[in-house]
Amino acid sequence: MTRIQMLTRDHCLELLRADEVGRLAVVVGGGPVIFPVNYRMDGESVVFRTDPGLKLDQGLRAHGCFEIDHFDRATRSGWSVVVAGRLEEVTHYESKAWERLHALSVDPWAAGTKEHWVRLVPSRITGRRVPAAG
Amino acid sequence: MTRIQMLTRDHCLELLRADEVGRLAVVVGGGPVIFPVNYRMDGESVVFRTDPGLKLDQGLRAHGCFEIDHFDRATRSGWSVVVAGRLEEVTHYESKAWERLHALSVDPWAAGTKEHWVRLVPSRITGRRVPAAG
Repeated sequence: MTRIQMLTRDHCLELLRADEVGRLAVVVGGGPVIFPVNYRMDGESVVFRTDPGLKLDQGLRAHGCFEIDHFDRATRSGWSVVVAGRLEEVTHYESKAWERLHALSVDPWAAGTKEHWVRLVPSRITGRRVPAAG
Repeated sequence: MTRIQMLTRDHCLELLRADEVGRLAVVVGGGPVIFPVNYRMDGESVVFRTDPGLKLDQGLRAHGCFEIDHFDRATRSGWSVVVAGRLEEVTHYESKAWERLHALSVDPWAAGTKEHWVRLVPSRITGRRVPAAG
C-alpha cells in the first residue's frame, strides 16, 4: 500500500478540462444519489445538460459533488478529482453565459431532450492520487 | 445519441462482483460527498474498509450510494451500476459476518489503518447502459 498524495488545484483543473464524463452526486429525500454525466468546464465551473427531473429536485443552489477518476487495477493505483459546490440552472436570461455554454457543445451520449443547462459552481476542488507501489 | 437501456439486477450484481474499486457518496453537513473506495461484495452488500472519520460521521444506518461504471470515450458508450442503501458498521460482535468479511480480503490501495469495516445494505440496485451508436 502506498500513501495518498494530494493534487494541486491547477492539476485538478487540468484533469477536469481533459475529460468529458464524470459522476454527479446530489441529495434526494435525505439520501445521496450518484449518476454519470457528460460535462464541460466553463472556467472553474462544471457544466452539464439534464432532462427535467431528479437533478433539479432540490431547486436552485442545491449542494452538488462531482467526481472524475482514473483507476489502474493492474498497478493498484489511480487518481480522483472532486468538485464540491452549488448547482445553478443557467437560463437564456443570462445571455453571455448562455452563449458561452452553447458554444462549449456539451453533447450527452444518451438520448433525451436534456434542455436544462446546469452548472456546479465550485466551493472546493480537491484531488488525490494513489501512486503505483514501486 | 442512443437510448439508455436498463440492466437487470442479476447483470448489475455480476458487474459488481467483477470489480474492486468504485465510488461511495454520503451526506455530510447537508451536502453530498463522493470518494473512491476499494470494495468487495458480500452477497448483495457492498463491503469496504475505512479509517475513522468522514465516512461514518452520520453514524449507523446513514444513507449511502455506491457506483461503478465503465466509459468508452471513443465510442461514446458505457454503463453504470448504482447501489443505494444504508451503511452499517460490521464489528466482531457479529462473529459470522466478521469472519466472512475478513476472508473477503478487501485490500485498500491507499495506506492507512482502515480498521472499520462497513457494509452498504442495498435497498435498490440499478444499472444503465448507453450502447455505442451503430
